[in-house]
Amino acid sequence: MTGSARAFAPASVSNIACGFDILGFALQSEADDSPGGPGDVVTATQGVRDGRAGPCGPVRITAIAGDDGRLPLQTGRNTAAVAAAALLEAEAPDASVDLEIEKRMPLESGLGSSAASAVAAVVAVDALLGLDLPPATLLRHALAGEILASGGAHADNLAPALFGGLVLVRSLEPEPDVVELPVPEGLTCALARPHTHVNTRESRSTLDRDLPLERAVTQWGNAAALVASLYRNDLELLSRSLVDVVAEPVRGPNVPGFYDAKQAATEAGALGCSLSGSGPAVFALCDGRDRAREVAAAMAAALEHALGVDCDRLVSPLPAPGARVIEAGRDAGGG
Amino acid sequence: MTGSARAFAPASVSNIACGFDILGFALQSEADDSPGGPGDVVTATQGVRDGRAGPCGPVRITAIAGDDGRLPLQTGRNTAAVAAAALLEAEAPDASVDLEIEKRMPLESGLGSSAASAVAAVVAVDALLGLDLPPATLLRHALAGEILASGGAHADNLAPALFGGLVLVRSLEPEPDVVELPVPEGLTCALARPHTHVNTRESRSTLDRDLPLERAVTQWGNAAALVASLYRNDLELLSRSLVDVVAEPVRGPNVPGFYDAKQAATEAGALGCSLSGSGPAVFALCDGRDRAREVAAAMAAALEHALGVDCDRLVSPLPAPGARVIEAGRDAGGG
Repeated sequence: MTGSARAFAPASVSNIACGFDILGFALQSEADDSPGGPGDVVTATQGVRDGRAGPCGPVRITAIAGDDGRLPLQTGRNTAAVAAAALLEAEAPDASVDLEIEKRMPLESGLGSSAASAVAAVVAVDALLGLDLPPATLLRHALAGEILASGGAHADNLAPALFGGLVLVRSLEPEPDVVELPVPEGLTCALARPHTHVNTRESRSTLDRDLPLERAVTQWGNAAALVASLYRNDLELLSRSLVDVVAEPVRGPNVPGFYDAKQAATEAGALGCSLSGSGPAVFALCDGRDRAREVAAAMAAALEHALGVDCDRLVSPLPAPGARVIEAGRDAGGG
Repeated sequence: MTGSARAFAPASVSNIACGFDILGFALQSEADDSPGGPGDVVTATQGVRDGRAGPCGPVRITAIAGDDGRLPLQTGRNTAAVAAAALLEAEAPDASVDLEIEKRMPLESGLGSSAASAVAAVVAVDALLGLDLPPATLLRHALAGEILASGGAHADNLAPALFGGLVLVRSLEPEPDVVELPVPEGLTCALARPHTHVNTRESRSTLDRDLPLERAVTQWGNAAALVASLYRNDLELLSRSLVDVVAEPVRGPNVPGFYDAKQAATEAGALGCSLSGSGPAVFALCDGRDRAREVAAAMAAALEHALGVDCDRLVSPLPAPGARVIEAGRDAGGG
C-alpha cells in the first residue's frame, strides 16, 4: 500500500492572558485563509517496515524545511515524530510512516510551533491510514509531542491548532475535554513577533510552582469572566478579564520590549494585550480589523525601537480554521 | 422625618464546587417564593442622632429574632450594623438608623447567613433613606459586613443575595464586577443541612495559603467550563466541571458525614455535589425538581445516619430571586 497525505495545522496563541494552560485560539493570515501560514505542513508517506529501532521505531523524518536547520531529524527529539509514533503505537501498530515537515511559521516565538507540528503530523497520519480517529483521540496522541517540547502536559496550543477557533481545555484527564467557545463578531488578533526566541521548556521552568491563593482566585475570576464575555458579546467585560496575574508577571520582565509593546497596544486602543504563550510574540485582542492593524503596527514599532531587531506583524481575523488535510491520495506520493 | 423599610435577602450557596470566592447562587423555598426564607429580614427605622459613639456610631441594633440569642447586639460585631454603618458613612453621613434583624435561616451552616444580614441591611437602609444607590455600591458597603464575619473580602454570597440568580464575581477591585449568568431550565438545587455548625472565619483560616500551580490550573479550567456549560445548556459539561480541588479537599474531612452525603447524592443521580460554602450544609445540583427531591432526601438520610442529628432539607428551583424591599413607608414605622 502506497500513498501520502498532507495536512496543515495553524499557529496559535495560548493562555489568552487569564487562561494559563487552558485557553487558546488559532491564527490565520488576514490576506489569505488558505494554508499559507502561519502554521506547519506535514506530509505523511507509507514507510517501509525495516526493523528500525529507536524511540519512534516505525516513524522516520525524511525532511524538514523552513526551520533554518534548527529542528532535529532524530525522531525521539522531534515533536511531529513523537506524536505520530504515539498514534501508530495505539492505533496502527503494524504501520510505519515517513514524515516531511514544512515550517511555515517561526520557532520558539510563543506561537505554538511544536503544537502545529504535532497536530499536523497526527492529522496527516490519520488521513494516510484512513483511520478517521475522533478529534479527542488525535489530540491525545499529539499531546505526546507537546510534552516532549514543553516538558508539561497542556493542550492550549494543540486544541486550537486541531479544532480552530477559540477553545477551552477544561481538563486532560481522563480524556481531553475541549469546549469550543463563541467569538464575538469583529474580534481580531493583532500580533507582533520580534526576531528573538524563547525556549518554552525553559520558560515554563521559571514559573512559580506554588501560587498564593488570592492570586489564584483573581485568575479564575478572570478566566470565568472571559468565557462569559464571549457568550455575552461583551467586549468591555472581555477587556477587563484580559489580565494575567500568573505567567505574565514572571515572564514579562524576561521578554525584552514586552512592556513597551503592551503600552503601545493599550494606547492604540487594544482591548487587552499579553504575551502569546511564553513570548516573545505579543498579542492583542481588538475590536475590528482596522483597529487591529493599528495595534499591530504600534506594537511592532515599539518592539523594533526597544530591541533594534526586525519584527513581524500579523492581523488574524477570528475565529481561524483549524487543522485540515490539504492533499490525500493513495497513489499520490512515493512509497 | 420618620418611617421604616423592611428588606429580605436570601440565603445562598457559594463556591459552587469549582468557583471558590467567585461563584454563588441564591436559594428559595420550593413551596413559596415569598420572603418566607431561607434568608434574613432587616427592618430599618430612622434613628435619633444622640451622639452615640462606638464603631458603628449612627447605627443601633434594637432587636434580633430567630438566632437563639447567638448573634451580637453590639454593632461593631454585627455584620448588618457594620454594613449599614459603611453605607451611612459614605452616602448619608448625617443620618442614623435603628435595625431589627429577623433570621429566617440557620447560622454558621454555609448558607451565607452573614451575607444575607449585610445585604438585607443595606437594601433596607437604602430604601429608608430613599437613596436609590446602584447595586454595585450596595454590594461594596455590604462587603464591610462580610469582611467582619469571614475575615476576608469575598462576595460570592453577597452578590447572589443581592442580585439573585447565579452570579460570577470577577473581581472586587477597583469596584465589584458582577456577572449574572444564565441558568439552564430545570436546574435545581438540593440541599441538606445537619444541625451542626462551622465558623466561616475559622474555616477560611485552615485553607492553604499557597496552591500548587497544577491544581490551580485544574480549578480555573473547571470554573471556566462551568460558565460555558451554563451558556450552552450543557448539563454533562456542568457535571464534569463541578469539581473542587481547592477547598473541599481541606474542608471535607472536617465536616462529619460530608463524604457519605456526597456519595448518596451521586448515587441518587445528582449532577454534582460539594460543600455549600464552608459547610456543614451540602448542596447538589440536579436536573429537575423530582430528581432534586430524591437527592435531598438521600443526602439528609446519609447525614442523619452518619451524625445522629437532625438534618433539614431544601429543594430550591433556580434561579431564585435576590434581595428586595418588602415593606417601605415614610410613616409606617416608629421613629
